[in-house]
Amino acid sequence: MRPTKQPFPFSAIVGQEAMKQAMILTAVDPGIGGVLVFGDRGTGKSTAVRALAGLLPPIAVVRGSPTNAASPDEEAEWAETTSDEIAEVPTPVIDLPLGATEDRVVGALDIERALTRGEKAFEPGLLARANRGYLYIDEVNLLEDHIVDLLLDVAQSGENVIEREGLSIRHDARFVLVGSGNPEEGELRPQLLDRFGLSVEVRSPSDIEERIEVIRRRAGFEADKSQFLNKWRAEDAKIRDAILSARSVLADVQTPDDTLRDCAQLCVTLGSDGLRGELTLLRTAKAMAAFEGASVVTRDHLRAVAPMALSHRLRRDPLDDAGSVTRVQRTVDDVLA
Amino acid sequence: MRPTKQPFPFSAIVGQEAMKQAMILTAVDPGIGGVLVFGDRGTGKSTAVRALAGLLPPIAVVRGSPTNAASPDEEAEWAETTSDEIAEVPTPVIDLPLGATEDRVVGALDIERALTRGEKAFEPGLLARANRGYLYIDEVNLLEDHIVDLLLDVAQSGENVIEREGLSIRHDARFVLVGSGNPEEGELRPQLLDRFGLSVEVRSPSDIEERIEVIRRRAGFEADKSQFLNKWRAEDAKIRDAILSARSVLADVQTPDDTLRDCAQLCVTLGSDGLRGELTLLRTAKAMAAFEGASVVTRDHLRAVAPMALSHRLRRDPLDDAGSVTRVQRTVDDVLA
Amino acid sequence: MRPTKQPFPFSAIVGQEAMKQAMILTAVDPGIGGVLVFGDRGTGKSTAVRALAGLLPPIAVVRGSPTNAASPDEEAEWAETTSDEIAEVPTPVIDLPLGATEDRVVGALDIERALTRGEKAFEPGLLARANRGYLYIDEVNLLEDHIVDLLLDVAQSGENVIEREGLSIRHDARFVLVGSGNPEEGELRPQLLDRFGLSVEVRSPSDIEERIEVIRRRAGFEADKSQFLNKWRAEDAKIRDAILSARSVLADVQTPDDTLRDCAQLCVTLGSDGLRGELTLLRTAKAMAAFEGASVVTRDHLRAVAPMALSHRLRRDPLDDAGSVTRVQRTVDDVLA
Amino acid sequence: MRPTKQPFPFSAIVGQEAMKQAMILTAVDPGIGGVLVFGDRGTGKSTAVRALAGLLPPIAVVRGSPTNAASPDEEAEWAETTSDEIAEVPTPVIDLPLGATEDRVVGALDIERALTRGEKAFEPGLLARANRGYLYIDEVNLLEDHIVDLLLDVAQSGENVIEREGLSIRHDARFVLVGSGNPEEGELRPQLLDRFGLSVEVRSPSDIEERIEVIRRRAGFEADKSQFLNKWRAEDAKIRDAILSARSVLADVQTPDDTLRDCAQLCVTLGSDGLRGELTLLRTAKAMAAFEGASVVTRDHLRAVAPMALSHRLRRDPLDDAGSVTRVQRTVDDVLA
Amino acid sequence: MRPTKQPFPFSAIVGQEAMKQAMILTAVDPGIGGVLVFGDRGTGKSTAVRALAGLLPPIAVVRGSPTNAASPDEEAEWAETTSDEIAEVPTPVIDLPLGATEDRVVGALDIERALTRGEKAFEPGLLARANRGYLYIDEVNLLEDHIVDLLLDVAQSGENVIEREGLSIRHDARFVLVGSGNPEEGELRPQLLDRFGLSVEVRSPSDIEERIEVIRRRAGFEADKSQFLNKWRAEDAKIRDAILSARSVLADVQTPDDTLRDCAQLCVTLGSDGLRGELTLLRTAKAMAAFEGASVVTRDHLRAVAPMALSHRLRRDPLDDAGSVTRVQRTVDDVLA
Amino acid sequence: MRPTKQPFPFSAIVGQEAMKQAMILTAVDPGIGGVLVFGDRGTGKSTAVRALAGLLPPIAVVRGSPTNAASPDEEAEWAETTSDEIAEVPTPVIDLPLGATEDRVVGALDIERALTRGEKAFEPGLLARANRGYLYIDEVNLLEDHIVDLLLDVAQSGENVIEREGLSIRHDARFVLVGSGNPEEGELRPQLLDRFGLSVEVRSPSDIEERIEVIRRRAGFEADKSQFLNKWRAEDAKIRDAILSARSVLADVQTPDDTLRDCAQLCVTLGSDGLRGELTLLRTAKAMAAFEGASVVTRDHLRAVAPMALSHRLRRDPLDDAGSVTRVQRTVDDVLA
Repeated sequence: MRPTKQPFPFSAIVGQEAMKQAMILTAVDPGIGGVLVFGDRGTGKSTAVRALAGLLPPIAVVRGSPTNAASPDEEAEWAETTSDEIAEVPTPVIDLPLGATEDRVVGALDIERALTRGEKAFEPGLLARANRGYLYIDEVNLLEDHIVDLLLDVAQSGENVIEREGLSIRHDARFVLVGSGNPEEGELRPQLLDRFGLSVEVRSPSDIEERIEVIRRRAGFEADKSQFLNKWRAEDAKIRDAILSARSVLADVQTPDDTLRDCAQLCVTLGSDGLRGELTLLRTAKAMAAFEGASVVTRDHLRAVAPMALSHRLRRDPLDDAGSVTRVQRTVDDVLA
Repeated sequence: MRPTKQPFPFSAIVGQEAMKQAMILTAVDPGIGGVLVFGDRGTGKSTAVRALAGLLPPIAVVRGSPTNAASPDEEAEWAETTSDEIAEVPTPVIDLPLGATEDRVVGALDIERALTRGEKAFEPGLLARANRGYLYIDEVNLLEDHIVDLLLDVAQSGENVIEREGLSIRHDARFVLVGSGNPEEGELRPQLLDRFGLSVEVRSPSDIEERIEVIRRRAGFEADKSQFLNKWRAEDAKIRDAILSARSVLADVQTPDDTLRDCAQLCVTLGSDGLRGELTLLRTAKAMAAFEGASVVTRDHLRAVAPMALSHRLRRDPLDDAGSVTRVQRTVDDVLA
Repeated sequence: MRPTKQPFPFSAIVGQEAMKQAMILTAVDPGIGGVLVFGDRGTGKSTAVRALAGLLPPIAVVRGSPTNAASPDEEAEWAETTSDEIAEVPTPVIDLPLGATEDRVVGALDIERALTRGEKAFEPGLLARANRGYLYIDEVNLLEDHIVDLLLDVAQSGENVIEREGLSIRHDARFVLVGSGNPEEGELRPQLLDRFGLSVEVRSPSDIEERIEVIRRRAGFEADKSQFLNKWRAEDAKIRDAILSARSVLADVQTPDDTLRDCAQLCVTLGSDGLRGELTLLRTAKAMAAFEGASVVTRDHLRAVAPMALSHRLRRDPLDDAGSVTRVQRTVDDVLA
Repeated sequence: MRPTKQPFPFSAIVGQEAMKQAMILTAVDPGIGGVLVFGDRGTGKSTAVRALAGLLPPIAVVRGSPTNAASPDEEAEWAETTSDEIAEVPTPVIDLPLGATEDRVVGALDIERALTRGEKAFEPGLLARANRGYLYIDEVNLLEDHIVDLLLDVAQSGENVIEREGLSIRHDARFVLVGSGNPEEGELRPQLLDRFGLSVEVRSPSDIEERIEVIRRRAGFEADKSQFLNKWRAEDAKIRDAILSARSVLADVQTPDDTLRDCAQLCVTLGSDGLRGELTLLRTAKAMAAFEGASVVTRDHLRAVAPMALSHRLRRDPLDDAGSVTRVQRTVDDVLA
Repeated sequence: MRPTKQPFPFSAIVGQEAMKQAMILTAVDPGIGGVLVFGDRGTGKSTAVRALAGLLPPIAVVRGSPTNAASPDEEAEWAETTSDEIAEVPTPVIDLPLGATEDRVVGALDIERALTRGEKAFEPGLLARANRGYLYIDEVNLLEDHIVDLLLDVAQSGENVIEREGLSIRHDARFVLVGSGNPEEGELRPQLLDRFGLSVEVRSPSDIEERIEVIRRRAGFEADKSQFLNKWRAEDAKIRDAILSARSVLADVQTPDDTLRDCAQLCVTLGSDGLRGELTLLRTAKAMAAFEGASVVTRDHLRAVAPMALSHRLRRDPLDDAGSVTRVQRTVDDVLA
Repeated sequence: MRPTKQPFPFSAIVGQEAMKQAMILTAVDPGIGGVLVFGDRGTGKSTAVRALAGLLPPIAVVRGSPTNAASPDEEAEWAETTSDEIAEVPTPVIDLPLGATEDRVVGALDIERALTRGEKAFEPGLLARANRGYLYIDEVNLLEDHIVDLLLDVAQSGENVIEREGLSIRHDARFVLVGSGNPEEGELRPQLLDRFGLSVEVRSPSDIEERIEVIRRRAGFEADKSQFLNKWRAEDAKIRDAILSARSVLADVQTPDDTLRDCAQLCVTLGSDGLRGELTLLRTAKAMAAFEGASVVTRDHLRAVAPMALSHRLRRDPLDDAGSVTRVQRTVDDVLA
């Protein structure tokens, strides 16, 4: 047995607060939708996502379920799960490897069973394995649009519908899509951007001391992984507990009419198309409130999450060369003044 | 067994009257042809189409029929339906998933039977499942022209003719094609546009109160689906009853010669090519009259449906930058003054 | 058994005289070659071709012949027709469905027999089914050139030669190719145009009364098909009888030397390349004479058919923006004055 | 048994002397190489090539030989010809049908034998069938360059070498390639042009009387084929006898040094690349002399064949817009003055 | 048995010090990452890499392990290694041959076992064979970006994850990627460049005496390989011993805070994106110190390796046409002054 | 049995001295590398290469060896050669036919054995057959770059490495690659050019007498091949004996330091990239000396071979429009003055 690889501890990541916040909020409410992480190569995007795996709370699944079903009742019809036993397993963080073929992503005809038993059975793909967890795509802007579209479609509907090779199959596929992208390597179409729930930008720190701290921690991790992980375990557990607590109160967080109005007003002022902006903004603010233990969503919550919920939904403004995050913050300052 | 997903109630959709009207009229008379829904992402197009499923009246089908045949006499020759029993089932609303392969759309050789029993049998596709119902394509403008052409061909002829892989098969495929499109992502060729019966445009509401209502209902739905659905069930039933009633009187609605003349005059004045414009206009107005319980088609009916029946058939006018809906309405005002 | 679909009656088509005439003449003498029908979508091109099926006289075929052979002597060598009995069947009008694969068009290896009996047998395609009848292609300009070329090749030689997948097969494929095209969607190469025997153009009527009549008949047909068909049966029969009568006298129609000279003079004056123009003109005029019961081809016959036989063979004249039909008629007036 | 199709008699072709002469000379000496026939559609190119089949002298072949071997000694190693009997058969004129796949052209693995007997056997293609005869390609300029190149390669080397699908096979493939091309539809690369032995151009006659004669003969042929063929049989036989007589004396025709010098001088003056020009010119002139019963090649023979042997080998001269045939004739007049 | 080919001795390579140094340092610490060797064809890049094979220290592997596992505990789960015996084998230097298919690179379904035993087994590819060694790609810039990306991904994570053909497999793939590239034949994307640990440039010597020495040694090698190899064996062994010694002390080399600060300062001043620059610089300097037997990293070590660790991470500076190596050295002189 | 085709005698080729010299020198020392023959079509390039087959000395091979192994010890591991007997066979000259598939070039899975015996055996390709001989590619510039690259790679390393279809095979493939190219049809990349050992240019003779001699010899060959071959047999044998003699003394030819210096100086002055220029120049001059029976390489030998060894390695000089051969000769005159 090859030993499992240990990821870098989430709480040991230097800086990158927005990214860490966005990931925590989707852990509180996966319904917020996917997260898009912009930034140059070498800014630790992959490290952060892989760090998530160590942070997330475990989930209860039917033992052997190919779709991580929470109970036999929720199992897909085609699954041949034989056990009823419920087990706790880590929240799945599935990595879409470069060169994965479409059949392995969505699932496909099980060729082995077709050949040996003459049966037309379904072999689930990565979308089934990601159910109730995270699906990570490095350099999402290098994928073809139709694949990104497909992944977003499944992520949004929470269901993977397969109509190919004579199969007509569907199964739950509720996951948070996390994509990293490099703005210098071509952009995603606005239609795809809009379908990600949140977006954050990461940059290399320009502060020398911060850079030294990054090098020091990285060197510490590589020198002795167990010791380093022990050192940060408590910090990670603190965040995990806060997430679990936030989940338990999320449904009870109040969203007064004034908050709805603030959301609508912000989006109308920013001129974002459609209604996904305000729906996501509201939902993210609610998760933020729950994470902070508040019982009512306030303007502070809106202020905190508006940039990550809205900045990727702006139309380009040729007369305003400020970044989109700045433009959102300026509008927030005006509208919520 | 995974529980079935509940769609949002049709009658709880805020605004979007033209779209809702168009869908109701094709439910009264599916012969009107497909509906094209234009609009930006996030304006609720998918939600509306999926809401249709909850609204439509049930149909009577031979139990187990792969083409939803109404009686054994109407069954396709190749189908091996063994029962004669008639059952009531919901009107099918079939969703063309992204990445569906052509063989699953039109049907194909049944590879399992070919391999195990050495028979060349037909395995029906989505077009068979959509018979007597609706076929929905999200972002129809992203599909290749030849597929859209094929779908429109089948939708118009009501018959799916398969000549491939050594199969020579045909079966009923009478369905209403509903396509959503985003005008910013490239347009359909005029020839394809013309083959859709109706077109409507949806926009995000710019009124703050209306936007808040959308958010509120959405939040209500997500908070407690059963309660929300119960609240709107009566409204949906009212529309369904009106559709059934309209269907029963449709054949008896009168179309006086003056009405035919109005239709022809409108189309000549608008300069729409071919005769599909007036044929569709007449048919839609007749469905409108039936839906309103009128026994004769009047100019009011023509006025009500002319924009959705004609606006996608106009040639671009470089000297007139009004939208096509406006141009239709202006002409209606002139001709039917 | 699904009931067969009833086409619209040929004689109930309003206007479109040139198109109807062209189709009748190829029914009198299929050797005239294919017909190209130009026109916008929605002008009833498909309706007219499908109407042909109801009009054409029946043919006598060997029962079960895959190529509609008239006698066992004319059967293809590879066919395994077991009966010698001759039966009367409707003239085949085969529709090339969108998405038909090349193997289904020309025929291909019979995979079922190859797999089950280990034999390399031929499975005939649409070209075999169309033998002695019509092959209809909607939007022929959307097909790839090499397919159109192939179809024209077979149509002209009357023989389908297959050299593929280890098969070396040939069979009769004498049919009239009818293609509809939309001049706004790209044009056929001159070389392909020249290989169609006749061409006609159809337009939407601009006369309001005529348009109303179209709507009225269409509505009548859709309201009660049987009644409508009964009403027009006698008209269709009259045309069918005239065709049969014309066929019986065709060989005896005289073509005086002056007629040959007129044909040559017309084509030289029009500057049409090659000799297909005059050969087709003569043949079509002869069919026209036979249809009208004349025993000798006259200048009136040439005048009547010259536009459909020649207008698609003109070179574009940059100094003359008259349509090609007009140019042919002008030349006819000059030369045959 | 379907009756064989009768081609139009070679001698009944009106005009087109250069084309007919070129075909006769390659029948006298197939080593001259392929013939390229330029001309618009409808000028009777296909008719002429198919007419060849009726004209050519028969050949003696081993009965059942897949490569038309003249004796068992010349049979390909892989052929399983069982008989030693020699039979007279018509000179093969093989037509490369549009859409023929490469495996059927060059030959391929015999799939039937591979599947049923587990043997890796070769199934010969059209190149084997064309051995010792003619291979005709309509619209050779529409073929892809690499196929034309392959065909010319085989035609020139007289041998078909197959290295594919695990096969390593070779067989005689000595044939004359006849290609028809339309100069308006894109040109062949100079390298391909140079590899055809001869080229001729055909045009529609501009003389009215000649055109009438074409129509009259065509009509006569179609009215009663047997009678028409009987009428021209004697003319065809005369040409066939002349070819056979020319073949028997060909080896003895003298080519004096002055003739060689004339050939070289002509090509140097015309500036044609390489030495194929003079080699072909000499060979064609020798065949011409043999056909005319002369024992020595004279300047008259060179004059007669220079245009067809050289005009497709000229470089384009931007300062001389005369056609290439004219330029060759002018140079012939100068050099052989 | 074909005798194994002997590579040219590493120490007999004339000049090319930077390249040799880079290769030695990655042998000391493979974690430094891949090496990119820039230079024109004919500068001995391939020769140098192949020479590595003779220089590198042997590794201990489980006999028969498909992934060169160091112990049964580290073996991949799917491997069927039956022995526990540990053997010493040469460090693998795997050459990615031109035309290697992707399935042979990453591994694929074992078709033989699938067919004969009906099992879905994994057949490891070159990435498995390269584990714990080197993978060499000649002309890496001619590979498609997605393959280079895949190789870098695996090289960096040290793990090959396969999701294709129904396989879901992972195995260790820790290797140093060595790519040679020709800057005149198109460049690698900055994102790919950044993922190589080191880069060096090789040029043909311009000194006549050095060139003569190259020719002389090359001629000597080709004249008598055994004699030539014997002559240089001691030199190669000296380097190998130094590498082994450096490895044993590497973990104990100290990196004072001032060194971290120097690394950060250098990268900030050079404006290199991300943090890969300083992480690699530190690691390479540490390997350099170990190789030189130093217990602490000094500024001299940074100076020695900064060009190879940083020059491929610079952004192009349009105002500074100095080469990137020069720019790095200038900055090193400034910052570490 | 089909009789083998007789090539034109090598010594009967008129002129073309450089090409003949280059081929002779690679026969003396195949390590010189491939030969690139530039020239227009029709200049006898193919004839010359095919003539080589008749000239080359025979080689001793293990009977039945698929790779022409000289002794059982040198046989590839996968070969199932059963005999130990050594036989003399002609030096292989393998022709890469147009349309040869990659699997037949490099070798591939033996499908017959895979299907019948369930074994994964290797079926060698043309590269195996060419071992110890010549591989000829007509129009090498029409091949795709990656194939040329692959062929050059194998030719240079002398080894064919196959990693495809689950095979991991290697075998000797030491051959001289001879490519003919037409400079008017696109050029090879400089990187590919550099990897050919020698290059020569052939032109049609412009001298009338020489052209006549070409025609006369060609005509003589075609009139009576046996007689013509007899006439030139002695000339060919003389060259063959000289090659064998040169091979036996090659290893003893001296290359004084002054010669090395001349080589280096010439290449530095010409500015050729890399060191392949001088290495090839030296090697070719040595073969030239051996062929002329000299024991030491002199400046005359360098002068004789410098154009063919260096002219394809020059960079284009925009200020010097002399051909590259001229530029090499000018530099030789200067440097070796």
